[in-house]
Amino acid sequence: MTRALTLILASVPIALIATSAMTASKGLPQDKQSNARNFVLVAHGGAGDYSHLTPEQIAARRAAMTTAMEAGYKVLAGGGRSLDAVETTIRILEDSGQFDAGRGGYYTRDGVPELDAAIMDGQTLNAGAVAAVKRIANPISLARLVMEKTPHVLLVGAGAEQFAESQGVRLVSPYYFFDESRWKNYQERRAAEEKTKSSGLSAQPVHGTVGVVALDQSGNLAAGTSTGGTNWKMPGRVGDSPLIGSGTYANNESCAISATGTGEFFIRNVVAADICARVKYLHVSLEQAATDVIMKELVEQHGDGGIIGLDRHGNVAMLFNTNGMMRGVVKSDGNITIKIRQE
Amino acid sequence: MTRALTLILASVPIALIATSAMTASKGLPQDKQSNARNFVLVAHGGAGDYSHLTPEQIAARRAAMTTAMEAGYKVLAGGGRSLDAVETTIRILEDSGQFDAGRGGYYTRDGVPELDAAIMDGQTLNAGAVAAVKRIANPISLARLVMEKTPHVLLVGAGAEQFAESQGVRLVSPYYFFDESRWKNYQERRAAEEKTKSSGLSAQPVHGTVGVVALDQSGNLAAGTSTGGTNWKMPGRVGDSPLIGSGTYANNESCAISATGTGEFFIRNVVAADICARVKYLHVSLEQAATDVIMKELVEQHGDGGIIGLDRHGNVAMLFNTNGMMRGVVKSDGNITIKIRQE
Repeated sequence: MTRALTLILASVPIALIATSAMTASKGLPQDKQSNARNFVLVAHGGAGDYSHLTPEQIAARRAAMTTAMEAGYKVLAGGGRSLDAVETTIRILEDSGQFDAGRGGYYTRDGVPELDAAIMDGQTLNAGAVAAVKRIANPISLARLVMEKTPHVLLVGAGAEQFAESQGVRLVSPYYFFDESRWKNYQERRAAEEKTKSSGLSAQPVHGTVGVVALDQSGNLAAGTSTGGTNWKMPGRVGDSPLIGSGTYANNESCAISATGTGEFFIRNVVAADICARVKYLHVSLEQAATDVIMKELVEQHGDGGIIGLDRHGNVAMLFNTNGMMRGVVKSDGNITIKIRQE
Repeated sequence: MTRALTLILASVPIALIATSAMTASKGLPQDKQSNARNFVLVAHGGAGDYSHLTPEQIAARRAAMTTAMEAGYKVLAGGGRSLDAVETTIRILEDSGQFDAGRGGYYTRDGVPELDAAIMDGQTLNAGAVAAVKRIANPISLARLVMEKTPHVLLVGAGAEQFAESQGVRLVSPYYFFDESRWKNYQERRAAEEKTKSSGLSAQPVHGTVGVVALDQSGNLAAGTSTGGTNWKMPGRVGDSPLIGSGTYANNESCAISATGTGEFFIRNVVAADICARVKYLHVSLEQAATDVIMKELVEQHGDGGIIGLDRHGNVAMLFNTNGMMRGVVKSDGNITIKIRQE
């Protein structure tokens, strides 16, 4: 990535961004805003190798992230729940097609996306998740339905889609996820595999998993993550994103975490729960706990990725051991800051 | 459960049990055994309400558990790996049809079992798991193949079965899981649901999940769990058993855990990883950590279940907040002790 690109990613006051969503949230009476408790929303668009992305691709992702965060901010500024802010923000990221989530999910070796998502309420520890769903436009919302409408936490595959239909969620055509560049990439990989007879996994250029953690005016944390998983993954593979404690976790007693990276390392190390356990039991800061896990333990294992995290006091952690992680923060003042590279 | 039943479950010296497996392990030279480091294998056959089981049912489960533990003991006594002992023991429990795992898996609302399993190596943190598989006789062995033959940790549903076939694992007919009493139970529930139009989940009489934790002569821990999940579960529902950190976890630095109970509570509380985190960060004993999680936190949430655990020093924890949990211990001396009720 060039120096010029880094400059593009500097902080932009939200007031400079004209959208109807922001207009509405900026329209809140000032005294209501100042009386309100502090609230925070942190989002990520995946940790990975950003050096192959063009400035145009970065700009498109950045615009999608901004739009999504504006919507999440609006929920929190209006006194809404962190759970709603997380779902709202992630839905927009899923719909954008700019990330490895929802419409933009990577294709498996079978040539279609299989999507995973989880959402968790830090106040109650209630959680919902779906994995390996092929015909769901917004896995994060289906995860929330699992949380609220079933006695279960995790539904996978055809069973999850059957549940979706029972809840009136329309199953989309596989072509909803069609994209010229992903299709071309798939065909190239398939041709290459047939040539070499290799069954190994190729690295993907960028992990574009999306995730959001939020603290609302009532002091409640929530976390959510949505992903298409690793590119060219085996059908049926489930990563860390939909697994409570690995890729997604929220607990008012400790912290809220959403992870991104090569999920297998995050599963084996139960990363999200481990960071929160260190905060709770060792009484270290969220930043310290996340540094020890992401920048030391995972690095020793060659496990690439990062996390965003929030504690109940509004402390933010955004760490990654790759060359970039798209991440954004917005607090009560409404300034959205989005960055990619290490500072 | 009657007092008489409790008496049946007392400790039985392994020398009294005549099987070829035990004959072989008892045949090891005495000096090899005495020079060897201590090793331990702990198994469970599910926590739940044992009051509805007949003495004959208990005796059949107890016999299956004994046979399985003998085989696991033999692996450890011969200097084998804890990972092999875990897999060997669980395979026999799966094959027995006496537990809610493998051949004996409960039926979902669709009238067939969907099986979950996980295995984890405490030395390397390598792990493998499968979930929602319908045509696999031994999910624990498929979990191990996922660990050793793929870059992934968790494969679910049809993708997991596709992988099984690629590895030469034969898919079994659905009738492999047919059982007169489960089929009758399914028909009754289905009739009752059609009558009441209720979509709630009925409680199951006994959680018969199986799990094993082991410490081998090299001082390495391993854990494994296999289950059919809750009775009458929604298709696609995945419980805690195959989720690393929730129902299954092993780490030489802290402990090895296999859980049983209503999995959703174990997922929300990331139970296995939390117990090990308390051991690692709070420096409390495994027994204390497990007591605080299972007998306090889960009880407050009305989350029923239990765990078996082992640390690297061979300390054993077996706790449950239900009226029973079938559990067995065997150490280097070869005495297998199997109990069900609280002491």
